[in-house]
Amino acid sequence: MTTVLISGLGLIGSSIARIMKKSDVQPTILGDDPNDDTGQFLLGQGIIDERVTLLKAASRADIIVLAGPVSVIIKQLAQLTTVELKQNVLVTDVGSTKMQVMATAKRLQKRQIAFMGGHPMAGSHKTGGRAGREDLFDHATYFIVDGSQTPAQTAQFKACLKPAQLRWVNVSAEAHDGLVSEISHVPHVLAANLVNTADHQLKHDAVGLSAAAGGFKSATRIAGADPTMWTAIMLSNSEAISDQLTTYMAQLKEIQSAIEAHDADKIYQFFEHAKTVRERLDQEGETQ
Amino acid sequence: MTTVLISGLGLIGSSIARIMKKSDVQPTILGDDPNDDTGQFLLGQGIIDERVTLLKAASRADIIVLAGPVSVIIKQLAQLTTVELKQNVLVTDVGSTKMQVMATAKRLQKRQIAFMGGHPMAGSHKTGGRAGREDLFDHATYFIVDGSQTPAQTAQFKACLKPAQLRWVNVSAEAHDGLVSEISHVPHVLAANLVNTADHQLKHDAVGLSAAAGGFKSATRIAGADPTMWTAIMLSNSEAISDQLTTYMAQLKEIQSAIEAHDADKIYQFFEHAKTVRERLDQEGETQ
Repeated sequence: MTTVLISGLGLIGSSIARIMKKSDVQPTILGDDPNDDTGQFLLGQGIIDERVTLLKAASRADIIVLAGPVSVIIKQLAQLTTVELKQNVLVTDVGSTKMQVMATAKRLQKRQIAFMGGHPMAGSHKTGGRAGREDLFDHATYFIVDGSQTPAQTAQFKACLKPAQLRWVNVSAEAHDGLVSEISHVPHVLAANLVNTADHQLKHDAVGLSAAAGGFKSATRIAGADPTMWTAIMLSNSEAISDQLTTYMAQLKEIQSAIEAHDADKIYQFFEHAKTVRERLDQEGETQ
Repeated sequence: MTTVLISGLGLIGSSIARIMKKSDVQPTILGDDPNDDTGQFLLGQGIIDERVTLLKAASRADIIVLAGPVSVIIKQLAQLTTVELKQNVLVTDVGSTKMQVMATAKRLQKRQIAFMGGHPMAGSHKTGGRAGREDLFDHATYFIVDGSQTPAQTAQFKACLKPAQLRWVNVSAEAHDGLVSEISHVPHVLAANLVNTADHQLKHDAVGLSAAAGGFKSATRIAGADPTMWTAIMLSNSEAISDQLTTYMAQLKEIQSAIEAHDADKIYQFFEHAKTVRERLDQEGETQ
């Protein structure tokens, strides 16, 4: 019988609980979340088996999944060095950045506790444990950053998440943080900045943003995401994000110059290339 | 019996034909498009009644809708000054920018031909006459820029599009171009630039863009739009677009500085404000 303790029962943590409950492993799931509404809801639905608090219940777990924001994960990794844990426990996380997490986890590893970094590339603009779904991760990429876990522990963790048919990808913490900055963190900054800039510019326009069509809405959907989580991400991956914003702005200035110069060829190439790349992305999604 | 000639049977033009066919006006629809496949398809579906060419059929129309890219509309407005038209004809367009169109239309108006600028705020990343839908405009904003049309002509045009339950909004050409730059043109540039920058940075990354989750995909969906149309839009609204890109980059630099400085409060405010504005947008959509 495998016992999994999940700390943080938001969108990601509660989806993990839902997926694991469908797996052949059928683990007992202990859930830790300060939000009573979420905890009671998930307990009532049978998605978790028991409400606990991380440090009091940690000694009972075979797998501990830290599923809060990165800032919370960092604190919990330090706290876990102060309590008794099972000898073969696997501690893992789902944090959106990995360098800071892996560095902090070294303290656990020194105490012979196995740690594995993880990050499922799935999300929603919705937040909270009620919004979790057992299909949220379906066919998504799940990054693994090797820490000190054994192959058997990795296999057991993957078995628990088997119903999601994940694409498991091993990366270094550094490569991970650069990549997710590009495909997730920077896009979030850009979308939020677009919403804020447009709102500011159109403040005194009677029609304003309300005339926006589906294009604006889909382009800015991610700007509705949880500000606490995204602030933590910015703080923990600031270097990669800032570097890439610089690159983004340099490129943007180039196309701005082409627009000012009415350089039709260059503008066409710009949109044509984007269309090609973007369509490839949809095709890849369909063949997964 | 009202005869409507639509030139340009792409996504927008063919959707207009579809909507008008559902209206109580039940106009005869003459369709002009160089693409044989589109023309034959729409004829076969009974969405248009006859395939024609603009200049040869113009004299038969009560309403002429120019539904090509802005660059084509500009040419057609000049061409229409060279042919005979019905005395009470209304010429209108659906171009994404209005200042250049209204200026060019002055030549028609000098010949006592009624012109009205128009722009439905609807679209899709899909293109072409097969992708048109009779519900594409449902509850959308339709901008009207007054030219020389009579109230009766405006009323007749609105009657033809009644099934779409549009929100008709009168604006000046200048206000229109500033507003759509903000809510449509600039977002398209940003999305295409994000796709191109990410593609360039991740060219040699084995995982790369394929790991992108739904957030990146929805934020960049509009980058899949038709490059010909978007090049024409950039050329015809370059000043507003470039000005707003400058503002956008200034704001982006501010949040970049906050990220570099680990200014958690400022970063949180930035995301929190964006979330509030973005959620209001969804609520407005729901109450329409």
